[in-house]
Amino acid sequence: MAGSNFGEVFRISTFGESHGPAVGVIIDGCPAGVKISLSDIQHQLTRRKPGQSNIVTQRKEEDKVEIQSGVFDGVSTGTPISLVVYNKDQKSKDYNHIKDKFRPSHADYTYDAKYGNRDYRGGGRSSARETVARVAAGAIAQSMLSQLNIKVISWVSQVGDLVVDQNAPTFDLNEIEKNIVRCPDAEMAENMIDLIKEVRKDGDTIGGLISCTITGLPVGLGQPVFDKLHADLGKAMLSINAVKGFEYGSGFNCVSMRGSQHNDIFKKEGDKVITKTNYSGGIQGGISNGMPINFNVAFKPVATLMKDQESLDKFGDDATVSGKGRHDPCVVPRAVPIVDAMAALVICDHLLRSKVDRLDQLLS
Amino acid sequence: MAGSNFGEVFRISTFGESHGPAVGVIIDGCPAGVKISLSDIQHQLTRRKPGQSNIVTQRKEEDKVEIQSGVFDGVSTGTPISLVVYNKDQKSKDYNHIKDKFRPSHADYTYDAKYGNRDYRGGGRSSARETVARVAAGAIAQSMLSQLNIKVISWVSQVGDLVVDQNAPTFDLNEIEKNIVRCPDAEMAENMIDLIKEVRKDGDTIGGLISCTITGLPVGLGQPVFDKLHADLGKAMLSINAVKGFEYGSGFNCVSMRGSQHNDIFKKEGDKVITKTNYSGGIQGGISNGMPINFNVAFKPVATLMKDQESLDKFGDDATVSGKGRHDPCVVPRAVPIVDAMAALVICDHLLRSKVDRLDQLLS
Amino acid sequence: MAGSNFGEVFRISTFGESHGPAVGVIIDGCPAGVKISLSDIQHQLTRRKPGQSNIVTQRKEEDKVEIQSGVFDGVSTGTPISLVVYNKDQKSKDYNHIKDKFRPSHADYTYDAKYGNRDYRGGGRSSARETVARVAAGAIAQSMLSQLNIKVISWVSQVGDLVVDQNAPTFDLNEIEKNIVRCPDAEMAENMIDLIKEVRKDGDTIGGLISCTITGLPVGLGQPVFDKLHADLGKAMLSINAVKGFEYGSGFNCVSMRGSQHNDIFKKEGDKVITKTNYSGGIQGGISNGMPINFNVAFKPVATLMKDQESLDKFGDDATVSGKGRHDPCVVPRAVPIVDAMAALVICDHLLRSKVDRLDQLLS
Amino acid sequence: MAGSNFGEVFRISTFGESHGPAVGVIIDGCPAGVKISLSDIQHQLTRRKPGQSNIVTQRKEEDKVEIQSGVFDGVSTGTPISLVVYNKDQKSKDYNHIKDKFRPSHADYTYDAKYGNRDYRGGGRSSARETVARVAAGAIAQSMLSQLNIKVISWVSQVGDLVVDQNAPTFDLNEIEKNIVRCPDAEMAENMIDLIKEVRKDGDTIGGLISCTITGLPVGLGQPVFDKLHADLGKAMLSINAVKGFEYGSGFNCVSMRGSQHNDIFKKEGDKVITKTNYSGGIQGGISNGMPINFNVAFKPVATLMKDQESLDKFGDDATVSGKGRHDPCVVPRAVPIVDAMAALVICDHLLRSKVDRLDQLLS
Repeated sequence: MAGSNFGEVFRISTFGESHGPAVGVIIDGCPAGVKISLSDIQHQLTRRKPGQSNIVTQRKEEDKVEIQSGVFDGVSTGTPISLVVYNKDQKSKDYNHIKDKFRPSHADYTYDAKYGNRDYRGGGRSSARETVARVAAGAIAQSMLSQLNIKVISWVSQVGDLVVDQNAPTFDLNEIEKNIVRCPDAEMAENMIDLIKEVRKDGDTIGGLISCTITGLPVGLGQPVFDKLHADLGKAMLSINAVKGFEYGSGFNCVSMRGSQHNDIFKKEGDKVITKTNYSGGIQGGISNGMPINFNVAFKPVATLMKDQESLDKFGDDATVSGKGRHDPCVVPRAVPIVDAMAALVICDHLLRSKVDRLDQLLS
Repeated sequence: MAGSNFGEVFRISTFGESHGPAVGVIIDGCPAGVKISLSDIQHQLTRRKPGQSNIVTQRKEEDKVEIQSGVFDGVSTGTPISLVVYNKDQKSKDYNHIKDKFRPSHADYTYDAKYGNRDYRGGGRSSARETVARVAAGAIAQSMLSQLNIKVISWVSQVGDLVVDQNAPTFDLNEIEKNIVRCPDAEMAENMIDLIKEVRKDGDTIGGLISCTITGLPVGLGQPVFDKLHADLGKAMLSINAVKGFEYGSGFNCVSMRGSQHNDIFKKEGDKVITKTNYSGGIQGGISNGMPINFNVAFKPVATLMKDQESLDKFGDDATVSGKGRHDPCVVPRAVPIVDAMAALVICDHLLRSKVDRLDQLLS
Repeated sequence: MAGSNFGEVFRISTFGESHGPAVGVIIDGCPAGVKISLSDIQHQLTRRKPGQSNIVTQRKEEDKVEIQSGVFDGVSTGTPISLVVYNKDQKSKDYNHIKDKFRPSHADYTYDAKYGNRDYRGGGRSSARETVARVAAGAIAQSMLSQLNIKVISWVSQVGDLVVDQNAPTFDLNEIEKNIVRCPDAEMAENMIDLIKEVRKDGDTIGGLISCTITGLPVGLGQPVFDKLHADLGKAMLSINAVKGFEYGSGFNCVSMRGSQHNDIFKKEGDKVITKTNYSGGIQGGISNGMPINFNVAFKPVATLMKDQESLDKFGDDATVSGKGRHDPCVVPRAVPIVDAMAALVICDHLLRSKVDRLDQLLS
Repeated sequence: MAGSNFGEVFRISTFGESHGPAVGVIIDGCPAGVKISLSDIQHQLTRRKPGQSNIVTQRKEEDKVEIQSGVFDGVSTGTPISLVVYNKDQKSKDYNHIKDKFRPSHADYTYDAKYGNRDYRGGGRSSARETVARVAAGAIAQSMLSQLNIKVISWVSQVGDLVVDQNAPTFDLNEIEKNIVRCPDAEMAENMIDLIKEVRKDGDTIGGLISCTITGLPVGLGQPVFDKLHADLGKAMLSINAVKGFEYGSGFNCVSMRGSQHNDIFKKEGDKVITKTNYSGGIQGGISNGMPINFNVAFKPVATLMKDQESLDKFGDDATVSGKGRHDPCVVPRAVPIVDAMAALVICDHLLRSKVDRLDQLLS
């Protein structure tokens, strides 16, 4: 109801404020027998960590994760897995200047109106620091998927007007982790880094696009009506801070296409049913068809600027919000592991959900 | 789990196949005291009905709705409201030719793989006929919103390459129901109708875009983390048949914008806090800020063509799917009331959810 | 939230008032492949039907059930199954005399206070007529269990002070359906019938106890903490009208027992692990251990008497509630199929839930 | 699905094993504005703590609780509240002797069969140590109830054959916390303590009964069908370790009562509607009627004995389970705060759920 949990079977519940003692997550419904290593979880958190490069926020957090339950002798036991990361580098004083002010395009005003009070330090619960919990839980989901040979890969495909061409010869998914912007085209990565630095120099921020592909999926994930696989992926992505849009397969381009062009024709490849094109993005009728799942997620420019902005305070008076604190000039490099995590969580959940579709599978 | 229900407090559960006896819905959690009129529900169903004009499918369904429970003396009693529409014009024989074949970009293959059997007549549960239940339930939600002075308005904003200009002097929301394509620009409506007819003549289909605006909302709807208001709107829209993308506020355009351009500056208008621009689309940090909510929904071209298409049958052999049956050349004119319905359902659910945010409101 | 649904995976949503047009249920999450016969459902409804004997209410309802969706060629398709029973013998006029009065130990007062209005005819939603939907859904669950060789059997084990002795030589579960009180001891059945008739002659009513046993269950159903198998069975039973208590295994007798007496010692019987005694009632740590599950459910005497009773009306004035209408002098004979149904629903739900406990089962 | 969460609006998710690093809970849906004090939470944990007297287990745990989120300046902010208690006195070696053995009437066998592996140390997740999380969360619920003037009081009403007489002149709820057995009759408390000591001397254990009363409730809590207030209370209680039965109001005694005796007659007391008797236990039709809620919970004798017992090991061979470790001879003295906690959680949840019953309340 209060919306801090996600998933039906593989279900996570998160907690934590940006400048409170800790952020963390309980994963309930992870099956027994998943191999879980602290270093795999830590690896994903490190991909998300502040201070990882010179184009992201310089807040210094180790983001060291602890496993509090649910894992015994390196495997999940079927009971809830609790993961916690204690906050270290909370410069709460940095936020006294906005205690009573509403930062433009932040959640200050809406939280204040909704709850009557709020933890104003660093955005409190509305801070993207909450995604630490998602990434930690997602790492467990990725461990499970890896035992099932399913792969989730995300990357930065656009920053500002700089668009990656997926058909360029320089496009290579192995490049993603080799540059600080997480772009699969090494040359474009350089351009993006330059753009982000330039924007930061202006005290400004810039938007970006993340693309994701999921391969190795069986046919049959997703539920027919409201819990279509892409509807749950869409909700997962739209729940990430700063996201403004989601599209899968042909996406918004479908609007100007004709059916004869858009339909994906089935054919056999060995024993496997595949489609000649993949405008469906690997999902038909809400259910995976075995082709790769492809989707895009649009991230807005970060709302915190290193500039003064006009605004209001909570008494309704005019106020100036000045540019202070440590923030990202562009959110997408650090959002790649968050997209990975949310995608992995949705897939694990639907994998488990799809296990009870048929009585003949229960009888076996 | 099987995904045929939607909403947490104002919760609907739907049932029904395209060519089964009936489609319907139970609404659980509608508060006592909502004025409910059969004719209001019927009105919305008529907006969605097949055969309503010469640019939609000619299946003839009255779509006459019955209220089976939950309403007494014209008002809701707080108990579940059951609505049912019996199917009349089921030409099931029309579907014998596809009994064992997988229609391209339909759900035939995925349902078959998932369940091992399926009701192949007219797509069964994967048919857009399922949306009858959504529209009926949405009509109840709209009745509740109307008592709270909240308005949901959707329209066709693009068909193929024909794009409505919201800033044109001819743009008028009062036009929407005056033309059969449901476009708020009378002249563009004519062009769209011509395009749809031309496409149909080719035995082909075309995609489209629906825009929606919601006004009169209080500040504070939506939950902070996973159940952000736009995340739930996004899921609602993505769960509608043929939808490939969702964006709100600035949407995908945000990717190439700078923060200084994208931030919405607060100001006072009388006693009310408003923003100078509305790139946030009425939602900040996942919570409504009192400005109009705006979003777009992309619909793919209908997959059923009046042409032969290559495919496979369920035995893995090559097969030809021939173009038969009664179908829409473009789905958006009839999808407008579906978008209205799903939006109204999300808003009612979050209105109720937001009533338990604060202890001081419980004490009063 | 409004509580008209039950179950997590095998989930039902019910609707309907005693004197409205219909009562019914949607079952979402029934796996594909369950053999479903209209006559099996009808059979269970007939066991619950009013007017079935001279010791129950004489309201005349055929209780003829229709399947509206989810079944194709005699098997479930995996999509929602909708079942509806139209009300026929609604003598709504019978209830005008209580329109503004609160019947003692009924839900009139609490509904009125909760909702501000209510359908007063025959108790509306609070009527035990709502259990028609449970029995119909339970019949589907029983069909699934029967394909898995799991048996649920309930019977009347006490009426007033007349207690069935399970160790008597005359105790025989095959007797249950052979007498109108549904008692497994033919002689005791006669005594119970006499008692019920005597009570009815006084214009009074009497309480009763139903016992249930479930056999053929695999080890491992139930979840460790809140959704223990007996906790869900308990909730299911306590949600039935007129139930005041639930106990399983040793039940309330455990209070005066010692551990050395109460512990069930494990032993092998062939390849199977069993226990020498079964004070655990087939459930240990909330999880089935393969032994029969046993529980008891206490039903209060029906609140409607054929006598005048003092009370209040909704204006706060003194009022007399007179004894009118058609009611059961003792609820347990007709409640047996309701207990069966609710037990079967819980077991189906937990069977499905237990299918995602282990990764090795997902890999196979 | 995996059942580690409880509640719909005021929802808790728990984690932790007896001998893992920590046990804890996330509370999601606690309204903003509840006054929260660490010492109130600690107080309830201290009531549940091992080693508190000479009739309970001598495991030494401080049970010091930390608040990790959701509280700012001493009040709840509306965001998730995370509470954690680190385990200190884990003598895991004590459990090596049962690593491969199934203790009688414990969850060893069922967990092993369900999950394929288990954390055998101290029962792992099946240990009553899990209730630390419930008591911590319940303390928050009790803080909220206290701001609403609602009181939950539980006590030991029976140990073995020693039954408290509620009508005795020595019965006094103020006595509960004055003796180590938590019995409201000082003299009976002495007898109970003697009995427990005697049982312990035998290396044995004994069952007990806890009674609870809830006062100050408004009319209207509870939902009509499956989520009746007593059904949710029943599930809450049955989910506590060692509970075998639940009854409310007249409970199992209703079976032998007549309606004319059992019906609670309404009357006015000032402006308030009350009933002359309270066999309904404060709940009619599943909804609170403003009278005190009364219920009883039966606890079995603890399964761990200080005696050798025959059993099986996980290889199917005969094994002897010897009596070692630190355990309670009778569970009820420490279970009183657990019953308090679970009752408070149910009431908070239903209080919030009842706030969206009526449109007129939304309009105000």
